[in-house]
Amino acid sequence: MSNQTPEASPDKPLDLDALRAANPGHWRRATAIRTLTLDAVAAANSGHSGMPMGMADVATVLYEKHLKFDASRPDWPDRDRFVLSAGHGSMLLYSLLHLTGYPEMTLDQLRNFRQLGAITAGHPEYGHAPGIETTTGPLGQGIATAVGMAIAEEIQRARFGRKIVEHRTWVIAGDGCLMEGVSQEAIALAGKLELSHLIVLWDNNGITIDGKVSLSDITDQKQRFKASGWNVIEVDGHDPVAIDAALSDAKKGRKPTMVACKTHIAIGSSAQDTSKGHGALTDPDLIAATRRAYGWEHGPFDIPADIKAEWEAIGARGAEARAEWEMRLAELGAGKRGEFERALKGAPPRRLSATIRALKKQVSESTPKVATRKSSEMVLEVVNPIMPETIGGSADLTGSNNTLTKDMGVFSPEDRAGRYIYYGIREHGMAAALNGMALHGGARAYGGTFFCFTDYARPAMRLSALMGIPVTYVMTHDSIGLGEDGPTHQPVEHLAICRATPNTNVFRPCDTVETAEAWELALTSTSTPSVLSLTRQGLRTLRTAHSNKNLVSQGAYILADATEKRMVILMATGSEVEIAMAARDILERDGIGTRVVSMPCWELFETQDEKYRKKVLPAGPVRVAVEAGIRFGWDRWLYGERGKRDKGAFVGMHDFGASAPSEVLFEHFGITAEAVAKAAREML
Amino acid sequence: MSNQTPEASPDKPLDLDALRAANPGHWRRATAIRTLTLDAVAAANSGHSGMPMGMADVATVLYEKHLKFDASRPDWPDRDRFVLSAGHGSMLLYSLLHLTGYPEMTLDQLRNFRQLGAITAGHPEYGHAPGIETTTGPLGQGIATAVGMAIAEEIQRARFGRKIVEHRTWVIAGDGCLMEGVSQEAIALAGKLELSHLIVLWDNNGITIDGKVSLSDITDQKQRFKASGWNVIEVDGHDPVAIDAALSDAKKGRKPTMVACKTHIAIGSSAQDTSKGHGALTDPDLIAATRRAYGWEHGPFDIPADIKAEWEAIGARGAEARAEWEMRLAELGAGKRGEFERALKGAPPRRLSATIRALKKQVSESTPKVATRKSSEMVLEVVNPIMPETIGGSADLTGSNNTLTKDMGVFSPEDRAGRYIYYGIREHGMAAALNGMALHGGARAYGGTFFCFTDYARPAMRLSALMGIPVTYVMTHDSIGLGEDGPTHQPVEHLAICRATPNTNVFRPCDTVETAEAWELALTSTSTPSVLSLTRQGLRTLRTAHSNKNLVSQGAYILADATEKRMVILMATGSEVEIAMAARDILERDGIGTRVVSMPCWELFETQDEKYRKKVLPAGPVRVAVEAGIRFGWDRWLYGERGKRDKGAFVGMHDFGASAPSEVLFEHFGITAEAVAKAAREML
Repeated sequence: MSNQTPEASPDKPLDLDALRAANPGHWRRATAIRTLTLDAVAAANSGHSGMPMGMADVATVLYEKHLKFDASRPDWPDRDRFVLSAGHGSMLLYSLLHLTGYPEMTLDQLRNFRQLGAITAGHPEYGHAPGIETTTGPLGQGIATAVGMAIAEEIQRARFGRKIVEHRTWVIAGDGCLMEGVSQEAIALAGKLELSHLIVLWDNNGITIDGKVSLSDITDQKQRFKASGWNVIEVDGHDPVAIDAALSDAKKGRKPTMVACKTHIAIGSSAQDTSKGHGALTDPDLIAATRRAYGWEHGPFDIPADIKAEWEAIGARGAEARAEWEMRLAELGAGKRGEFERALKGAPPRRLSATIRALKKQVSESTPKVATRKSSEMVLEVVNPIMPETIGGSADLTGSNNTLTKDMGVFSPEDRAGRYIYYGIREHGMAAALNGMALHGGARAYGGTFFCFTDYARPAMRLSALMGIPVTYVMTHDSIGLGEDGPTHQPVEHLAICRATPNTNVFRPCDTVETAEAWELALTSTSTPSVLSLTRQGLRTLRTAHSNKNLVSQGAYILADATEKRMVILMATGSEVEIAMAARDILERDGIGTRVVSMPCWELFETQDEKYRKKVLPAGPVRVAVEAGIRFGWDRWLYGERGKRDKGAFVGMHDFGASAPSEVLFEHFGITAEAVAKAAREML
Repeated sequence: MSNQTPEASPDKPLDLDALRAANPGHWRRATAIRTLTLDAVAAANSGHSGMPMGMADVATVLYEKHLKFDASRPDWPDRDRFVLSAGHGSMLLYSLLHLTGYPEMTLDQLRNFRQLGAITAGHPEYGHAPGIETTTGPLGQGIATAVGMAIAEEIQRARFGRKIVEHRTWVIAGDGCLMEGVSQEAIALAGKLELSHLIVLWDNNGITIDGKVSLSDITDQKQRFKASGWNVIEVDGHDPVAIDAALSDAKKGRKPTMVACKTHIAIGSSAQDTSKGHGALTDPDLIAATRRAYGWEHGPFDIPADIKAEWEAIGARGAEARAEWEMRLAELGAGKRGEFERALKGAPPRRLSATIRALKKQVSESTPKVATRKSSEMVLEVVNPIMPETIGGSADLTGSNNTLTKDMGVFSPEDRAGRYIYYGIREHGMAAALNGMALHGGARAYGGTFFCFTDYARPAMRLSALMGIPVTYVMTHDSIGLGEDGPTHQPVEHLAICRATPNTNVFRPCDTVETAEAWELALTSTSTPSVLSLTRQGLRTLRTAHSNKNLVSQGAYILADATEKRMVILMATGSEVEIAMAARDILERDGIGTRVVSMPCWELFETQDEKYRKKVLPAGPVRVAVEAGIRFGWDRWLYGERGKRDKGAFVGMHDFGASAPSEVLFEHFGITAEAVAKAAREML
């Protein structure tokens, strides 16, 4: 039948009747997706109709015959992951979840598509409903996130065996996903790592918002994927038999597979094969005509019981396999099962807290002078051995980020138990992969690059925050303190950028003790990503009095108080806490009582109660903030709580940096103890 | 000779003596680059030695035989552009500029490599010295910027003819550049646009910082480039005869060309072909041994006069062509020459100011209620016809960004005079291309996407700011006001991100008049990029009293003053100015004198004198800021000048947005006139 599938052309329109006649059962199941999409978009009067309509056949075959899932247990750890990278086609996913019987995806939710409080947001939002494996919409993110899911699956299979872990990651990606640069990072990484359980279904409809794809692209995508080591299969995306065969083939390879699905966007409507079809088709006449073309005689949101029953049978298809899997898990033995479940929950190992405390005690006594990137390595050296769920990596700066510890092993086609990823020069792909590992579950992922290159990773870092997933960004070389590499590599606005992002904990520790505390918070976080902003240059240990308590958890705290009457409060983070301490010495020498407040995490300080905040930053004394970044955001702390009359000054950067040795730059830009003391004196 | 070039292998080391013997003249010229690199890196005790050493042969042939330039006139508009995308190899460029006789690149500058105040920064910084065509270092930026240069060249050739404009853009890119996602956007765009004057020389040395490229990549780069429509040529990067032939071939194609240059990083040193060779080779013994291997008997920074003379002859090679070009320019006719020179200088056409004023007058009378993205289109409709140097475009959101105006024409292989670029879904590549057009000169470039996707373009937007080039980012759908697309598409932290970036003017106009003023400032900017943050939703015209003066140029101004005693100041930007005005109505009705300050550009307000700032925002009244973004940064204005006791409150976003119709969201998040009035009252 598949070779009889009619093809549309400018002269000869696609023959829907022939498609329907060829596979009537499939046709009505797929058409249920198409009409639900038309109905929901019409109800919302916004959304994207064409993609779900065009990819309904592929998605139907995927869910019906290939995707391993059990709609009644969306949290089955060994389910296949389905990622709708072309997130604007959200109604495809919502329709599938509703039809197959995911309990939360009711028809009412579809009716409320894109309305406040509905789980059916404009783009799929992770956490809104089971079955939404990741947030997509910003193009390219889904495919790049899926790479992380596939890595996590491989590593866990190596650890727990294929009786417990043996599933695939399926992605539907559009032309937009493939044009975004991050897709190249994802494709190349997946190809190198031979992630054979990753299958990308490309919705090759030849249309973007501006018109034909050929307006802006002539790339031979099949050749491009092959160039990075992928299997490539081509299929008519409206021929269910051919799709089934293609997906079967895709599962056989030893490489990741891209299935190029030739489809018609907004199939069957008057907007078919046009950019108009990409958007919201809301015209009642168009919708009515499209329903007629489909041979669909039911009303809006009306799915006949027999079709719904067929879909629900598909949703229950995996129940037996899931039950068998649960038996296998039960047979695994308590120790291994406990570890599997602990990691899946994201719970830290019991020993973590004691391990961090021991390190803190040791360094508060030995007081090493090291860069905080080195401090971070010291933490990872004790954490990684007791936390086998960590997956580390760096975007080609391993020796600079200090992210690789002994005995982690390097993840590769030859060593699936390796827990370190050489991401290559791919900050964006790395960040998205971290998201994917965290979303997959069972992994505690971190990745490193230079702090300045958070710029490259921004879209994925924002998604970490929006999804509320606890990945850790190890961002070294965090200021002009990196020296000679110059302004292209010197962050000045990046602390502000990360702090401005909701639900992101930005840690800028001042020494090894604070670094250990920051890592403890990052490794135990459940719903917030962490950014560790770490120095290249060596710093003195300032926390020389050991405390079991994690002081960084308060966000800010009194590191050294005034010995005389408190006239000045110096606030600082990271490498500038040392400068504040030196400034305090100068001021105290002159009888000016000076407190130093270390503020390693503004976000956590903000969550403390008012009493504590006022204890740390009382009204009255003048305040000087010191940070080798720009002032932007510091006024929040310089002027205290609303309406208070505190005076404040800022010592830091006012523009981009320069290329010179670190010490020269701190002098040149006036970020010195003398300058801090002077700023304080001028206000007294 | 070329086929006798010895190749290195694990067993058989590269035979430098044979290379030297085969082409002695070339060898010593290329070795001058290599030894200057070793010397400068040793003097700085930091930097990257291996890449300049490995690519010295290719660069020598390029400058000697192919690059069109005249060292005595680096600003010759018809010169070839040379872009060192692998910017860490900056000593390659500095050496070339010094050797060929660019006046500013003295030997002292090389001796001061990476020191404060030297023009020889760690990475090439645009503006530090003639011959540095763009800032590079963040990988992938150079190749993507070069695409913009090549576009600008094509468009100007179409306009002024090939007697005036006929040059190439050459790029040296490393594996890092090609791994970065932005390179894919650049490659695909250049391939589609058939930019035959763009030639990329890939430094195929097989090494990255973490080790062999194969640790993280197996991509067949040649196949990848071919997949996007490039010519690909392969060459032994140490064989000058073969290189010469390859570069000659590269100039012949009708497509962009990638020349894969097989090279040995850190050639001739004990670090050759290793990741150690990527970094700073500073060990004196290693350096001495390498000099011996090169047969170089001269001291550090000692370039024998005869070799320098050979290089200077290369530097003067283009003088005649340049002189002929000047004659051709002189013959062009005053009108066309004047236009060429005006655009090159970046001077606006004389009529611009009057055109903007006329539009302002018209809309202040007709008071349309339109989205500011539509206002922006209204401006472009009157500006583009009188400003033929504008080059517009969008990352596949033309109909949403409203960036295409009548009669611009679409730039394509068939229409080189078209001034509109369909960038595809490539925000990052677009931003870098804008930089390239501006750097090329003669172009006033703007590009559009959704404001949220500044995230994707960040690395290139930062370079706009760092280089100080006046490109314009047309960022529409600038808040929750975009509605149903939901939090993935709703910027909340992006105003803060752009404002936190030094040297970036962020405009958030409240109506068509302010939009016209913002555009006027963007189009006349000489050294600062502009971000226009524009709404999706319609806004009332608030500037109904026409003023010839550009009020946005002051950054903030009194839009409506208190009629009674001034007790409240409401500060707002963009769509929230309307809300502030409505809040003012409520408060004034109750006898509470209320001023509304529109603050479309914080950066420009910051540059006003203190007197004006205090006039607009005097101490005393309570202040409420209203903006549909997060508070971050607003404390600067809420608490006034240092030490003042003003009270302030903020009405805006506190977290990510949600998916729902725009009006519902403003209500849901409490960004309403009533909420603003209430916040003011609570402080009185």
